Amino acid sequence: MGFSNLELVIQCDNFPYFEDNQTVYAEHIAKYYEFRVSGIDATLGYILNSVVDKFPWPQYWQIDSRLKRVTLVTAANVTAADRSKLIAETLSEAVKKESFEVLKGWRSENYPVFGPGGEYLFEMERSASPLFGIVTYGSHMTGYTEDAEGMKIWVPRRSKNKQTYPGMLDNTVAGGMATGERPFECIVREALEEASLPESVVRPGAIARGCITYSHIRDARAGGEVGLSQPEIEFVYDLKLDASVTPKPGDNEVDAFELLSIPELKDALARGEFKPNCSVVIIDFFIRHGILTPENEPDYLDIMSRLHRRLQYPLASYRQ
Amino acid sequence: MGFSNLELVIQCDNFPYFEDNQTVYAEHIAKYYEFRVSGIDATLGYILNSVVDKFPWPQYWQIDSRLKRVTLVTAANVTAADRSKLIAETLSEAVKKESFEVLKGWRSENYPVFGPGGEYLFEMERSASPLFGIVTYGSHMTGYTEDAEGMKIWVPRRSKNKQTYPGMLDNTVAGGMATGERPFECIVREALEEASLPESVVRPGAIARGCITYSHIRDARAGGEVGLSQPEIEFVYDLKLDASVTPKPGDNEVDAFELLSIPELKDALARGEFKPNCSVVIIDFFIRHGILTPENEPDYLDIMSRLHRRLQYPLASYRQ
Repeated sequence: MGFSNLELVIQCDNFPYFEDNQTVYAEHIAKYYEFRVSGIDATLGYILNSVVDKFPWPQYWQIDSRLKRVTLVTAANVTAADRSKLIAETLSEAVKKESFEVLKGWRSENYPVFGPGGEYLFEMERSASPLFGIVTYGSHMTGYTEDAEGMKIWVPRRSKNKQTYPGMLDNTVAGGMATGERPFECIVREALEEASLPESVVRPGAIARGCITYSHIRDARAGGEVGLSQPEIEFVYDLKLDASVTPKPGDNEVDAFELLSIPELKDALARGEFKPNCSVVIIDFFIRHGILTPENEPDYLDIMSRLHRRLQYPLASYRQ
Repeated sequence: MGFSNLELVIQCDNFPYFEDNQTVYAEHIAKYYEFRVSGIDATLGYILNSVVDKFPWPQYWQIDSRLKRVTLVTAANVTAADRSKLIAETLSEAVKKESFEVLKGWRSENYPVFGPGGEYLFEMERSASPLFGIVTYGSHMTGYTEDAEGMKIWVPRRSKNKQTYPGMLDNTVAGGMATGERPFECIVREALEEASLPESVVRPGAIARGCITYSHIRDARAGGEVGLSQPEIEFVYDLKLDASVTPKPGDNEVDAFELLSIPELKDALARGEFKPNCSVVIIDFFIRHGILTPENEPDYLDIMSRLHRRLQYPLASYRQ
């Protein structure tokens, strides 16, 4: 039988829900400290107790083991750049001491963190984001064809040398959003870099179709420490391609692209061949295109709400 | 300026969230009793305290004012038909006594209620559903055209004589799902009844695109008692129409259909002209078709999660 679609969604959205079982939720939350910065009344992420214990915290961090809060303490007139500098310094120390596995996959790419009004607070090296449990943002695009034979989707297989989820199936184009980047520009850039899809095809053809949001706890497949909290937002795009356009690996992250039929995709999902957060982008695509329906997917309602989880952190707002 | 899209969504999804403010949530919940049936460990709805006080409960109802639970008490071997009969009898008594305004809009149409495994528990007259606060299900379809001038949507204006939301704008086709009906069959039936769209157009053309879910507290515009809890699920369908097909009022529920452009629709939304749960179907359509994007809608993320609220009640599963 393999995995059901709901099982695939729950693999991704596996942070407990308070309302489902308050005891389970409380036990889970007890594994973490809240991550905060002074002057901002919001939890920006959750840091595993074992990470808090092991971290070589510089003196500008306040570790409150009673409230279970880790706070970056700064002057009231701090700027985003100031905070970012302190965090970079903190991480640099942890890298020197080889404190954490995930930091061995250093990306030299910074992810932004936002405050309660959607304001930019600071940035942080990408590979450190799960240590702090901050919300990360990405754009995922499904490139598909449609003809008399039906719909097919272009699917890449991740390189066996990737740090995370090696050899698994991925979305046609997918990438994390670095500081200052917006969702659409992210997908235009990644489409060229990862799939050799030119701007002239992507800019007019890619259509924003919503987003999926979920709260993930990392397991061994992600590489590095297990149990890290990773809430994510993926903006989703569709790109209808004609036969003249073929995605091709543009860097060493992808081995090859294959054009898979809907039955082939369903089989690959059920076998668990997709990277978890890519499987849910496919499931969302199937729902939006009437492939999964209320009548053929018994867990339709549960899937729909879990794919759009209301995250309990301040989130980005991409005002013009 | 008029209403923002988030404001329109919140008008619809206005039942407080526990995680936003536990005090506000607790104060709100204190206004209700839980609705239960014996043998099923789940809250099936919320009944306003004032409704519980006023209801002429027959002896097979247990009113526990300490636990704040109203329970239909039956033998363990009860059938769905047995429960439905007791509830019909209970409502008939309330109608005779003219206890409630909403029951004056008696529809002679029954809505189903489901248990924790998606199993059918009983049915209840439609106009009584907000008294018990049960989850109700509907199908909404957006009929649209697309040509060189862009996209336009067919919008009906509700009859001034409708019991609920008279004179407001509606979705092309929309209707509640009676017991035994499935989402797609519901939209095929309603399309013919309300918009004179023939099966030969709707069955091949209507595409399932997901659903929206929200938790509504009724205000004066709905007619009848104010403060009733009304959690809802609307399955959404798109139907692309060519110029040869024009929806026409098929009954007395709609006055006329108009083909509105996207700017006209945005204006009508901002002016609050749409029935609340129809405005959110249009907003969902705008998101799914790239009209609202992360870059032009500042509340994109909040809107997406509120439109797919995880409801804390057992829900339907339309297994084949």
